[in-house]
Amino acid sequence: MIKHLIIILSLISLSAHADNDPLPSWNDGSAKSRILEFVTAVTTPGHRDFVEISKRIAVFDNDGTLWSEQPLYFQLQFAIDRVKALSSDHPQWFEEQPYKAVLENDREALAKAGKAGLMKLIMASHTGMTTVEFEQVVSAWLVTARHPRFDRPFTDLVYKPMLELLAYFRANGFKTWIVSGGGIEFMRPWVGAVYGIPPEQVVGSSIKTHFEIRDGNPVLVRDPEVDFINDEQGKPVAIHKFIGQRPIAAFGNSDGDLQMLQWTAAGEGKTLQMLVHHTDEKREWAYDRDSHIGRLDEALDLGLANDWLIADMANDWKVIYPFQKPE
Amino acid sequence: MIKHLIIILSLISLSAHADNDPLPSWNDGSAKSRILEFVTAVTTPGHRDFVEISKRIAVFDNDGTLWSEQPLYFQLQFAIDRVKALSSDHPQWFEEQPYKAVLENDREALAKAGKAGLMKLIMASHTGMTTVEFEQVVSAWLVTARHPRFDRPFTDLVYKPMLELLAYFRANGFKTWIVSGGGIEFMRPWVGAVYGIPPEQVVGSSIKTHFEIRDGNPVLVRDPEVDFINDEQGKPVAIHKFIGQRPIAAFGNSDGDLQMLQWTAAGEGKTLQMLVHHTDEKREWAYDRDSHIGRLDEALDLGLANDWLIADMANDWKVIYPFQKPE
Repeated sequence: MIKHLIIILSLISLSAHADNDPLPSWNDGSAKSRILEFVTAVTTPGHRDFVEISKRIAVFDNDGTLWSEQPLYFQLQFAIDRVKALSSDHPQWFEEQPYKAVLENDREALAKAGKAGLMKLIMASHTGMTTVEFEQVVSAWLVTARHPRFDRPFTDLVYKPMLELLAYFRANGFKTWIVSGGGIEFMRPWVGAVYGIPPEQVVGSSIKTHFEIRDGNPVLVRDPEVDFINDEQGKPVAIHKFIGQRPIAAFGNSDGDLQMLQWTAAGEGKTLQMLVHHTDEKREWAYDRDSHIGRLDEALDLGLANDWLIADMANDWKVIYPFQKPE
Repeated sequence: MIKHLIIILSLISLSAHADNDPLPSWNDGSAKSRILEFVTAVTTPGHRDFVEISKRIAVFDNDGTLWSEQPLYFQLQFAIDRVKALSSDHPQWFEEQPYKAVLENDREALAKAGKAGLMKLIMASHTGMTTVEFEQVVSAWLVTARHPRFDRPFTDLVYKPMLELLAYFRANGFKTWIVSGGGIEFMRPWVGAVYGIPPEQVVGSSIKTHFEIRDGNPVLVRDPEVDFINDEQGKPVAIHKFIGQRPIAAFGNSDGDLQMLQWTAAGEGKTLQMLVHHTDEKREWAYDRDSHIGRLDEALDLGLANDWLIADMANDWKVIYPFQKPE
């Protein structure tokens, strides 16, 4: 009888523990402990590291940090699909690079087109319409497009441990911001539903727009000109412009996030820097120093030297995507 | 006895009414009624004009809408004071326009220098330091500088009726944003304390900055190059970039706010557009169509034609500044 009671009490205790765990998809270990310890320190009144709510700013890269970025950035897949969809109106594209490469699925020619080619694809697919029209195009693509490996909507390929982390930070008074190299307007249509992040907390790359009155109605038209590339040195610049105060926590996964992490680390008081390390070829992908997408090289060296938190996907995460079951 | 009771009850009722008035510095009249009616409509559950909290966005111009802008924009006064303070390090300025005009208090020569001259003053006074240093310079100036007419800190010249309106909107679930032609970084050091607006809800003009590591520490350096002028057509562009959704209420006072008000008016559902009309020469200033500062001409015509709310400072406001007593 007493033995039974002890078992029952243990089960209740275990269950209570599981209910209280804000990061159930994280394996117990130093990564999880450091996150919990950081949030407890900055949110406990009277603690020497306490930070008032108005200064609890956490910034998150998107590609490779909150959702996957392989086999190519999802926004680039959008651009490719969009160029294909528009090709019937642009017969010249069948003879002109980099469009020809896209239309013929010629990966080699596409790679050869380089950054200039990429920019042409972005402009052809992302500009020339109003902001309202672009939002509709992105939303429609998300409904129908499927990731080639998982045959699921791209927004299914978000990291469950990071969704828990976002919610945990917000439950502790943090404002969570996306600071991504991706396009602001490519992200805003879906990050509310997927990450719980409102449109005004999305910082990203942008193209120029202009205001005009069209048939009596004011519209914003997306022009084929880059406004800002939110990567590397651009990230702290944009953080300062949009947020106006220094974050106390920053999450990234590549060299493009290095300066954002340095900027956050140089703030006063306790701060947290984390790199998502893609180490899980089986459940996601494994890549770092030699990858042409999401290269993690210099930032990994600096992260190791400065004791930044390196989250090892294979070892620290029980599950990667919400649709997968823990193993 | 009964008579006394009635008087006492009336006084209690009057006092309760006064306590409940969210806009005590507004005279009773159509301007005040329309504001109250708008907020009630969009915040009453079940009302046909109800708007959910996440979409309650209100945008406010600053110069001439939340604080005064005469006899010249306060930020220009800052630039002038700063050029004077720096002149000992720049002896050539005593021979070179527009600096010479500033140092000799030569208003005519300063006016002649035009926009190009103004831009030189802005660059000389606003750039060449880190963002942290600039914030300190602005904060120090605000402590010592005095407005020439009222001999008070410039931040005393904010409109009490608008402070009440900001608080009233926030109490009803609105996010209040500044969308000003003034510099973002000139406003952020003080708008929190003065308006209750956090740094991430300030949209304005900006100069470019770059990230660098200086003596081992990452800094953002302010460069002598314009990033964005947040005026006229620029305002809806910046609203879209920073906020990412269309405001349902917009407050301005000049032609520079016209497009912001048009953009807001074109949204779905019930919206509010208000122009502060400077009609009070005695307590503030009276100017509109012919003013070179805060010109209100085309926007006044459109406001009248579209039944936008025109707040008449002389007639609608019991008091202008917090330091003045109601008459």
